[in-house]
Amino acid sequence: MGDDVEFFERLNGAKSVSSFLDALKWDEDGRVVVVSQDHRSKEVLGVAFANREALELTFKTGLMHYYSRSRKKLWKKGEESGHFQRLVDLRVDCDGDALVARVRQVKGNCHLGYFSCFASRFTKGQGGALRMKLVGKKVFDPRKAYGKKR
Amino acid sequence: MGDDVEFFERLNGAKSVSSFLDALKWDEDGRVVVVSQDHRSKEVLGVAFANREALELTFKTGLMHYYSRSRKKLWKKGEESGHFQRLVDLRVDCDGDALVARVRQVKGNCHLGYFSCFASRFTKGQGGALRMKLVGKKVFDPRKAYGKKR
Repeated sequence: MGDDVEFFERLNGAKSVSSFLDALKWDEDGRVVVVSQDHRSKEVLGVAFANREALELTFKTGLMHYYSRSRKKLWKKGEESGHFQRLVDLRVDCDGDALVARVRQVKGNCHLGYFSCFASRFTKGQGGALRMKLVGKKVFDPRKAYGKKR
Repeated sequence: MGDDVEFFERLNGAKSVSSFLDALKWDEDGRVVVVSQDHRSKEVLGVAFANREALELTFKTGLMHYYSRSRKKLWKKGEESGHFQRLVDLRVDCDGDALVARVRQVKGNCHLGYFSCFASRFTKGQGGALRMKLVGKKVFDPRKAYGKKR
């Protein structure tokens, strides 16, 4: 990380969205990692990838857009369920290859009905065994949110 | 995401570290994304990648290990600076391809001296221009922490 030209130097005070996007350090597939975080509780909601188009649309609409690696296409978060993420602010790491989006999450992020996709917690217990606990809050019924005709 | 066999189903109640690692959904390069988060303030500290060896060592030692994509090698966080991350718990997302590590961060995570690598915040201002604010807390002098012989 220390060998990189830093994000700030690349940005060089520019204030347009396109300069911001130019200054990011895209991976070889043209993506950056985006962590979404509830702006109040600071709970991490999910981890996804965005390409340039997804971030342009995020800035334009104020709603989080990603690139779905499994479906190989642009993905507006909430497009099926209505569980949008409204962007509050975007934080950039020092070398510009990862973002934290602080958001207002409509209902919940996880397609299983949890507020956060990180619903399970693992700690090390006696004798090296892992202890799992479901710590996520269930906030909607996934059978009702997905799969219905809209 | 909804098409995947879920992480819990793959884990199927197993409690060993190796079963846990088997149940993760590694990318084509054998890595998962790991978000580190301060266990108290919930601030996101950094985003990195881990391979199987890095997570084995993390569980074994209680200190975060990653795989450095730029240096193409295993990386014990803090190995040069002494700014280790002590694992408190590990959270796994629903499809098992991303982790949130809640940690006790020694001094700061960012090689520029900030507590978090996500030190800069961007919001949309008047006329669509981006407003940047440095919101990170500087917690150490990077000239003293790095580059010295140990």
